[in-house]
Amino acid sequence: MSKSWVVLGVDIGGTTTKFGFVDMYGKCYNETSLPTRADEPAEFLVERLHQAAESQWDALDEEFQLVGIGIGAPNANFYKGTVENPPNLKWGVVNIVDLLRKFYDEEIPIKLTNDANAAALGEMQFGAAQGMKDFIVITLGTGLGSGIVVNGEMVYGHDGFAGEIGHTVAIRNGRACGCGRKGCLETYASASGIRRTVMELLAEKTEPSEMRSISFSEMNGKVIADAAKKGDPIAWEAFQKTGKTLGLALSDAINYTSPEAIIMIGGLAQAGDLLFKPTKEAMDANTLNIFKGKVKLLPSGLKNGNIAILGAAALIWHEILISE
Amino acid sequence: MSKSWVVLGVDIGGTTTKFGFVDMYGKCYNETSLPTRADEPAEFLVERLHQAAESQWDALDEEFQLVGIGIGAPNANFYKGTVENPPNLKWGVVNIVDLLRKFYDEEIPIKLTNDANAAALGEMQFGAAQGMKDFIVITLGTGLGSGIVVNGEMVYGHDGFAGEIGHTVAIRNGRACGCGRKGCLETYASASGIRRTVMELLAEKTEPSEMRSISFSEMNGKVIADAAKKGDPIAWEAFQKTGKTLGLALSDAINYTSPEAIIMIGGLAQAGDLLFKPTKEAMDANTLNIFKGKVKLLPSGLKNGNIAILGAAALIWHEILISE
Repeated sequence: MSKSWVVLGVDIGGTTTKFGFVDMYGKCYNETSLPTRADEPAEFLVERLHQAAESQWDALDEEFQLVGIGIGAPNANFYKGTVENPPNLKWGVVNIVDLLRKFYDEEIPIKLTNDANAAALGEMQFGAAQGMKDFIVITLGTGLGSGIVVNGEMVYGHDGFAGEIGHTVAIRNGRACGCGRKGCLETYASASGIRRTVMELLAEKTEPSEMRSISFSEMNGKVIADAAKKGDPIAWEAFQKTGKTLGLALSDAINYTSPEAIIMIGGLAQAGDLLFKPTKEAMDANTLNIFKGKVKLLPSGLKNGNIAILGAAALIWHEILISE
Repeated sequence: MSKSWVVLGVDIGGTTTKFGFVDMYGKCYNETSLPTRADEPAEFLVERLHQAAESQWDALDEEFQLVGIGIGAPNANFYKGTVENPPNLKWGVVNIVDLLRKFYDEEIPIKLTNDANAAALGEMQFGAAQGMKDFIVITLGTGLGSGIVVNGEMVYGHDGFAGEIGHTVAIRNGRACGCGRKGCLETYASASGIRRTVMELLAEKTEPSEMRSISFSEMNGKVIADAAKKGDPIAWEAFQKTGKTLGLALSDAINYTSPEAIIMIGGLAQAGDLLFKPTKEAMDANTLNIFKGKVKLLPSGLKNGNIAILGAAALIWHEILISE
């Protein structure tokens, strides 16, 4: 391993694809982004990505050496290198690793996994989970993603799709979920989930609230968090309810893999104590005795970096480090 | 590895402790048992166990060579070698591995884990999970135990107590559980759980049923299964309800580790189709789309052997085989 080694970390999102070159310390060079253009074939994105990466590479110091490419993407399969029917991209099933392979020699490893798994690897390599062997990362964005690490290794499962805690059932026969089922955790605990909770509270309660003048479409996690911090009773209660549902789910999750910590990241996790406090309270109150007091609930340890790019790069760094 | 190598497999239960010498093919020699005597100190059991094992060893062919001791016990911790406050044994926290170490040289590895983990290793080495890398074993006895295998390795978790699926909450604020919480899966899906379901049905319904003449104390999984097989409507419905609750819980479990199979073993699993059919139906109906049709629900593959002893021995065989 050399200090001049870098990994190209790529984060494919619904609207933007970001990338940068990440060294073994998690320092990211020449980070930049390009539009994903979800309605065009994936081939086009991969070609544009390659061009953009080449021009950023040329702008780097000559001493650097590319040792791999790690990619995070929605609905991605680590074993196959595919992205499979992501909700925000009209690609069907497409093998991103094969498409990118055309531009890079065989000796450059190219690995892909879903964004939550990438985030978990990023936290393990560079962030809050450094030195941990058993932990869970929960990403609270539009949905709820999860990456589970057991004994220092990512849990991919038999088919490469493990870690769908967002689709465990939080409330039997509860809210309709995008997956076609009902009551999934992510319909409550996510940016879109808390918005639905605000709507429910506006229907139930009579308190005046800023939330009453904002439409469903305009509402998002940040708007609700800002109002809650200013004392808005509906926004505040929405966070209490979200934290409670999430905390109960996490107390169940602990029973599976007995993690040292659960790390909550993503947009809604930016709300900080507003979300962490009720979540921790519900989690601790409902945790099985043998696990009580053992499990930390932590924010991301990647405060200044780009979690998604670092996570994608960690996919390669993790393999380099365990093979040494 | 040699054909004459054997592992002493020990299963410590609440009333009986069983052991035998298990070869690499899962053949068990000189199996025998002794009373556990739960009210005596653990030291006494370990001493009696050693004596009994020595006399069985002397009765074995001279060609055999002891290569390790594997022990399955309730509330056992793999990392520490301890049994910690098992409900049926008045031992507090006791280090079984240390106690047994006094009688065996350092070169003989001694490993201990909980009975459900041992069963999972037994199924992987000798039973239904041979060749599988990702699966879950559910033991349906008085309670519901679970052993989770990910990428060919047992999930012990940060503290050695992972795999408590029996204490995930099946019904929020449901039945009181021995753990002090409410609604745990094992209060519904276990031999004692189905007995409680029968009571509930006897209260709700008016149908004549054999179950009406059996007291709570006399009722057990086998009595209920026998009645259900003869067409008893209450007993039959109890299995339907148990299977439904269990199947829903298993569809959640799949989201964590994406297993190739879930293997159900133990007393209540002996009911066969009576339990497997409603469980599979509920599991398949509620599984997230990406996992649908991928997860097998299987009975034990250790039909003729003693699962507990083979599982305990597999704890050592697994380590020998992965180190080769």
